[in-house]
Amino acid sequence: MRIGIYPGSFDPLTYGHIDIIERSKELCDKLIIAIAINSAKKPLFSVEERIEIINNCCMIKNNVEVVSFNSLLADYCKDNNVSFIIRGLRSTTDFEYEYTIAAANRKLAPEIETIFLVTKGENFFISSNIVKEIASYNGDVSALVPPFVEDKIHRKISSIRNIS
Amino acid sequence: MRIGIYPGSFDPLTYGHIDIIERSKELCDKLIIAIAINSAKKPLFSVEERIEIINNCCMIKNNVEVVSFNSLLADYCKDNNVSFIIRGLRSTTDFEYEYTIAAANRKLAPEIETIFLVTKGENFFISSNIVKEIASYNGDVSALVPPFVEDKIHRKISSIRNIS
Amino acid sequence: MRIGIYPGSFDPLTYGHIDIIERSKELCDKLIIAIAINSAKKPLFSVEERIEIINNCCMIKNNVEVVSFNSLLADYCKDNNVSFIIRGLRSTTDFEYEYTIAAANRKLAPEIETIFLVTKGENFFISSNIVKEIASYNGDVSALVPPFVEDKIHRKISSIRNIS
Amino acid sequence: MRIGIYPGSFDPLTYGHIDIIERSKELCDKLIIAIAINSAKKPLFSVEERIEIINNCCMIKNNVEVVSFNSLLADYCKDNNVSFIIRGLRSTTDFEYEYTIAAANRKLAPEIETIFLVTKGENFFISSNIVKEIASYNGDVSALVPPFVEDKIHRKISSIRNIS
Amino acid sequence: MRIGIYPGSFDPLTYGHIDIIERSKELCDKLIIAIAINSAKKPLFSVEERIEIINNCCMIKNNVEVVSFNSLLADYCKDNNVSFIIRGLRSTTDFEYEYTIAAANRKLAPEIETIFLVTKGENFFISSNIVKEIASYNGDVSALVPPFVEDKIHRKISSIRNIS
Amino acid sequence: MRIGIYPGSFDPLTYGHIDIIERSKELCDKLIIAIAINSAKKPLFSVEERIEIINNCCMIKNNVEVVSFNSLLADYCKDNNVSFIIRGLRSTTDFEYEYTIAAANRKLAPEIETIFLVTKGENFFISSNIVKEIASYNGDVSALVPPFVEDKIHRKISSIRNIS
Repeated sequence: MRIGIYPGSFDPLTYGHIDIIERSKELCDKLIIAIAINSAKKPLFSVEERIEIINNCCMIKNNVEVVSFNSLLADYCKDNNVSFIIRGLRSTTDFEYEYTIAAANRKLAPEIETIFLVTKGENFFISSNIVKEIASYNGDVSALVPPFVEDKIHRKISSIRNIS
Repeated sequence: MRIGIYPGSFDPLTYGHIDIIERSKELCDKLIIAIAINSAKKPLFSVEERIEIINNCCMIKNNVEVVSFNSLLADYCKDNNVSFIIRGLRSTTDFEYEYTIAAANRKLAPEIETIFLVTKGENFFISSNIVKEIASYNGDVSALVPPFVEDKIHRKISSIRNIS
Repeated sequence: MRIGIYPGSFDPLTYGHIDIIERSKELCDKLIIAIAINSAKKPLFSVEERIEIINNCCMIKNNVEVVSFNSLLADYCKDNNVSFIIRGLRSTTDFEYEYTIAAANRKLAPEIETIFLVTKGENFFISSNIVKEIASYNGDVSALVPPFVEDKIHRKISSIRNIS
Repeated sequence: MRIGIYPGSFDPLTYGHIDIIERSKELCDKLIIAIAINSAKKPLFSVEERIEIINNCCMIKNNVEVVSFNSLLADYCKDNNVSFIIRGLRSTTDFEYEYTIAAANRKLAPEIETIFLVTKGENFFISSNIVKEIASYNGDVSALVPPFVEDKIHRKISSIRNIS
Repeated sequence: MRIGIYPGSFDPLTYGHIDIIERSKELCDKLIIAIAINSAKKPLFSVEERIEIINNCCMIKNNVEVVSFNSLLADYCKDNNVSFIIRGLRSTTDFEYEYTIAAANRKLAPEIETIFLVTKGENFFISSNIVKEIASYNGDVSALVPPFVEDKIHRKISSIRNIS
Repeated sequence: MRIGIYPGSFDPLTYGHIDIIERSKELCDKLIIAIAINSAKKPLFSVEERIEIINNCCMIKNNVEVVSFNSLLADYCKDNNVSFIIRGLRSTTDFEYEYTIAAANRKLAPEIETIFLVTKGENFFISSNIVKEIASYNGDVSALVPPFVEDKIHRKISSIRNIS
């Protein structure tokens, strides 16, 4: 059985992520969508909220699992019999960064492959960061994220404003 | 009437910006130099100081306006009948970033074009950040910014040192 | 009056070119679409055929002119009172090449600006070369070029095959 | 059954190709190594020689097939029930080119995925062209290609010299 | 006498740095390894610890000196009769950044050259940041840094954890 | 004694080459300017003409030698006790290509270093190819090459025209 893992922050999930998830399902017998917990970055959505979003917006079936992890990706993969890591590439800047990470992971776990899918042309500019920036100005993000996320992000930003 | 907008932080204005401003004037009937207020970044100069610098160092004539804005650029453009956004490109890293922003803006406001001018060869290494870094070590920035800015930045840095 | 020029080989015209042409019309009072005659390259279509294609596929109105030129672009621009050269950018490889050409043109004719428009996301992979390659295998190019070009290119390739 | 295809010129096979082939076997149930016949380029080795080299240097087992094709890759994939195309990436220049080809193939055959593997660090500089260039000066290519290829290429180059 | 300087943060020293140091020794009569003190960044190791590490892990002989500096690099070079600055390049992203810094330094001190060495293929993914990230998860960094650094970094990270 | 080599086609010498040559002299005790004879490319100037141009336009003193070579650069370096190869970098495209060549040379001759100098900002767009292209249209190349080359290239191009 080939197990693929698609790691990321998913803060929040975008149409770019969903495209990679749908295509990744075809490449493996089981797909793990893995939310990396990075204590150095302050996320907009909690891990629980991000899991809820993914469960709600992706067709999560038997062969797909949504998890979070707080360790080295290479270690998580070894512990869970992962065959390959899946990453999306949008641009040459992405490529350089991802190339480096893939090389480091190969050093740490030579048996685990990293495969890259390129983002569809119309999605290449979508990132979680640009979604958050546009939403912070009450801009329209309906072309970038599903309605469920759109609603969540506007409510989240309103609640932050009300507190501060 | 073609209205162009040249948005940026201008913290502070450099000879690189001035080159783009002078060339942009030729491309439109009215040019708006627009200082983006980004609450996430702590600028060295206040918006008022940055406006003063631009007014002092650029030949601001009838067809040029200096403004600040605190909204989505695409929204500001729609509200002010802007025809096109002007951006300077120095390097391929710039290009990748700007390409993404231009694509997002096209999604938000398809009727507004983004046009790119490339920095002159001798200016390509000039950025507001490198000016601030050199000035913070009392280095010579006279090749990078006009005398008015050079004076302002050395006084600003001295005043920060005296406080801390 | 601002005169813009959009130079290229247009061998043949693609939807990528058409996108840049439509957007360029908005930026100038007169647009010159200028076919560069490069004696070093053997084109698929003659200059006359390329002019016919552009006339047929673009909305050529009073303020648009289709020409060919066999000289230095900078000289052509000077002789025809061109204000700026328009170039489309698809990728960072494009950018590097175009940056160099723009710098050379600035040296040869400092008064003529070069401005860059970025290709729309869904068109970034379209080039005349890829159209010719796909067509040479009888592949479907209907998403890349207008029907008029599609028809021309298949007939052209058949006629070449019959000769050889 | 997932069928992967690894297309290329393989003129000649290098250790870089072999690395990608070995890793690709793990990603699919059947791997097709497909030699693209490009009438525009004059290869050093005939298709038959290239097939012989691959058969000799790779562990070709039941689930691996070596073929040549003279059509659009997208068409070949559709005709042979290929699930995904595998490409190796060495550098950002590779990436830009491959991104374009992948986008064109998606347009021609949306159901066929393209996945990228990155070359191992120590192999990133190996290409068939550099092998041929070094060999043409009788240089040592033993770190770049298997002994079987090394022998073949030196004999091939000697025979070309004797003719001319 | 040609004096070369190899500036950096060295927080901590990696096998990538050591490779550049060994190769740099051959290029000059005296090599200065210069730790840049950057008050804006919070380093993991103190300047004293970083000097200790370099002294311990590199073959520091008569013609090599380890220093720290807290000024503009260009000024430090002028004050110490440095002939050239040595920088390692790993990737095109590195290149763009370094190109800019080299141009700024040339403006500040035209008599001081900057020369670039490219990282060996197997080291290109090594950076102090990736070492710190892997170590923060108790990952294996033995392929990235000498044993002395490996020991230091694990003890440093444990001591930070015990405090917080 | 440190011997540096600056290899290239120099077809013809440009101000970009001269800048690198002048700066290289400072880095080594002896500099070899080495014209690579590439039988695959048809040069504009013969090897003898290119040597004459370099001798005429560069301050060739005792510690500088102009040669041509028709072998692997790595072999030439080993045979002539060269310590390092010097290459100029203009752009990231240059960088990628040069990175590959440097890695291949390291494999062939690990004891020979490759060092890179970056082109001065105002020269980055100058290449022998762009000089030839501009000259072929009788354009002004006086900012790109010394007067001696300018004269030679216009006479060469006239003589080719008269023949054909």
